[in-house]
Amino acid sequence: MRMKYIEGGVCAAKGFSAAGVWCGVKANSSPEKKDLALIYSEVPCAAAGIFTKNRVKAAPVLLDMEKLAGGRAQAVAANSKNANACAPEGMENAKRMGAAAAAALGIAEELVVVSSTGVIGQRLNIEAIEKGLPEAAKALSASAQGSDDAANAIMTTDTGKKEFAVETELGGVTVRLGGIAKGSGMIHPNMGTMLCYITTDCAVSAPLLKKALLTANAVSFNRISVDGDTSTNDSCILLANGLAGNAAITEEGPDYAAFLEALTALCTDLARSMAADGEGAKHLITCQIKGAKTVEQSEIIGKSVIGSSLTKAAIFGCDANWGRVLAAMGYSGEDFDPEAVDIAFASAAGRVEVCKNGRGLVFDEELAKTVLTGKEVVIDVTMREGEAEATCWGCDLTYDYVRINGDYRT
Amino acid sequence: MRMKYIEGGVCAAKGFSAAGVWCGVKANSSPEKKDLALIYSEVPCAAAGIFTKNRVKAAPVLLDMEKLAGGRAQAVAANSKNANACAPEGMENAKRMGAAAAAALGIAEELVVVSSTGVIGQRLNIEAIEKGLPEAAKALSASAQGSDDAANAIMTTDTGKKEFAVETELGGVTVRLGGIAKGSGMIHPNMGTMLCYITTDCAVSAPLLKKALLTANAVSFNRISVDGDTSTNDSCILLANGLAGNAAITEEGPDYAAFLEALTALCTDLARSMAADGEGAKHLITCQIKGAKTVEQSEIIGKSVIGSSLTKAAIFGCDANWGRVLAAMGYSGEDFDPEAVDIAFASAAGRVEVCKNGRGLVFDEELAKTVLTGKEVVIDVTMREGEAEATCWGCDLTYDYVRINGDYRT
Repeated sequence: MRMKYIEGGVCAAKGFSAAGVWCGVKANSSPEKKDLALIYSEVPCAAAGIFTKNRVKAAPVLLDMEKLAGGRAQAVAANSKNANACAPEGMENAKRMGAAAAAALGIAEELVVVSSTGVIGQRLNIEAIEKGLPEAAKALSASAQGSDDAANAIMTTDTGKKEFAVETELGGVTVRLGGIAKGSGMIHPNMGTMLCYITTDCAVSAPLLKKALLTANAVSFNRISVDGDTSTNDSCILLANGLAGNAAITEEGPDYAAFLEALTALCTDLARSMAADGEGAKHLITCQIKGAKTVEQSEIIGKSVIGSSLTKAAIFGCDANWGRVLAAMGYSGEDFDPEAVDIAFASAAGRVEVCKNGRGLVFDEELAKTVLTGKEVVIDVTMREGEAEATCWGCDLTYDYVRINGDYRT
Repeated sequence: MRMKYIEGGVCAAKGFSAAGVWCGVKANSSPEKKDLALIYSEVPCAAAGIFTKNRVKAAPVLLDMEKLAGGRAQAVAANSKNANACAPEGMENAKRMGAAAAAALGIAEELVVVSSTGVIGQRLNIEAIEKGLPEAAKALSASAQGSDDAANAIMTTDTGKKEFAVETELGGVTVRLGGIAKGSGMIHPNMGTMLCYITTDCAVSAPLLKKALLTANAVSFNRISVDGDTSTNDSCILLANGLAGNAAITEEGPDYAAFLEALTALCTDLARSMAADGEGAKHLITCQIKGAKTVEQSEIIGKSVIGSSLTKAAIFGCDANWGRVLAAMGYSGEDFDPEAVDIAFASAAGRVEVCKNGRGLVFDEELAKTVLTGKEVVIDVTMREGEAEATCWGCDLTYDYVRINGDYRT
């Protein structure tokens, strides 16, 4: 494997810079929490985006879908603190945001995509954003700090920033990919339910960029769940400016495969970090389903397990209540033989087999408790239906999830 | 309307008696919490049952499905503290439980249906149940106390018993229907997800009994959700012994309609009481969807709203976060115009309109807070797609849900 992890996030790839500033999207908010991010490429990029499947889509999502139809973009402007969804003057304000960013950067309006995240249903403070964008443009930096600031600016209830970068080699040329993401609540595997921006200096045609993004998304963002709620604003945008100097990828082959491998690794890391930072989460839950009939079956069953409130609460309580895992598999809608299912729990602290052939095993409760105190808990499920497998990620259900969401608007 | 509410629960109808005793299904459990219920009719009944759709079914469910295929039964034995699901010797022990109840009652084994509820995956303490059933048979009482005891014996994390009875008139003859139910966690609208026993002295043929139960279930138990988890043990059983003396209902007509009306009212009350007593619940949430294209659409959208963790947490926090309601409608999978949706919150404390044509209204936050402190909160959604409507019930997501389920097994 030629791929390796590097620093720099969304600024790791050549020709990209980023910034995060505070502009006061929310009245009386503290300037210490940045609320406006800008990502910029020196040159126009091939671009691809995937968006929420929610029937109710925020204005910036609708606008971006239109803008990215042509497969080109050069910059992203994104704010936190307000989702600009179901809000008065939504589309008008989304357009104003794109126009203001374009003016500040001196590029064409159609090359700027925009995102918003935060509370639904309130008018976006576009005046603050219009004042903030020139400042953000001035603050643009190609250093790791630029990526950090942008990652911070898009955070809402996230407790930490999500930022990764990788590099790989294509025909002797080093290409880099980096991404930042936010996402903590309203996370469910039906399109990633988050904001995510990935930049690369790899030269890739727009159609293959879209294909690679869809392929990587299917096994990463589409396999995480925090709470089963799919948001109105989810967007994942990939910009490729071609400045690495590789022979442009215009068809599937070894270069495409290497690019896809790096992109998939990056998306998986970002997705896992979103699940691990699920609102109030104390544990990252990794559910591995093996021996399924098809990948689709393994994925449906895995998502049902990570989506089960009872399973999530049990992991929070470090309670090896595997019956809830089997019950969640059972209501997934998939057909399988419950008497050919084995379940184990594992973590850095050890491994404990709890169910064999659909029946409870006598196991060491103390060991199980210890295993489940691990920060990352693996629910390891083996079926005997076939050879397919999938891994999905979620988090536990905690008092803090309830606290955070019991009073989000104020 | 000839229907009225009466006392007596599952013993309200002629010829039925019930009991609840402690037999020690769980080692070291306190005799103060009854764990074994028995319901008995003097004469064999027409009987109908509906059961969990979970692919993983508990042994007693599989056994009852077989027994009720003939449409006849005379008694129900049910234990709490152990679900006899995915458990060693599951089917053997379910059969032993039926046989022991039959012996204690002096009736044929095939006329006894059995249920279990509690922890999954542990061997049922059948020896305790075999010792307890003769005691339960001795304790059978046709008084309201008998029904009370049985209702208590099947409770798990329920905080109160669910027990209702109604009477109506068919051709000048009074017939009665009464029911008890348990259900607090693992409640989701895909078959009721609970235990529920309904008795009636109405004379009804087995096929019409089944039809009435399916029809009533569709608008009651199938429209509640506590946590989206469908259990392995859900059972709803209806026994009709015919002792009221009415002209037997053998076809659809005014008598069937009156019977169905009474049955639907009873099931709705039992379903609402389950939702209101959802694990840790502080609020009953009633979601009314009006103006949908079809009843099916209104139901799918309503279930999506009551199933939304974010909406449930907002109601817990008395936060009028209607954006989450609209978002949950949007990810229901149903197609509709988000710009033709109005939303209001209501309770005994008042009513507040929060969204009109998919856009936020300026509303009195203090009034909204007051409305949402009501014990029963109505989420009133009006669409402009058609004339269909449905009401679904759920509950808020609280710290106590997490606490109760973080450590259920111990």
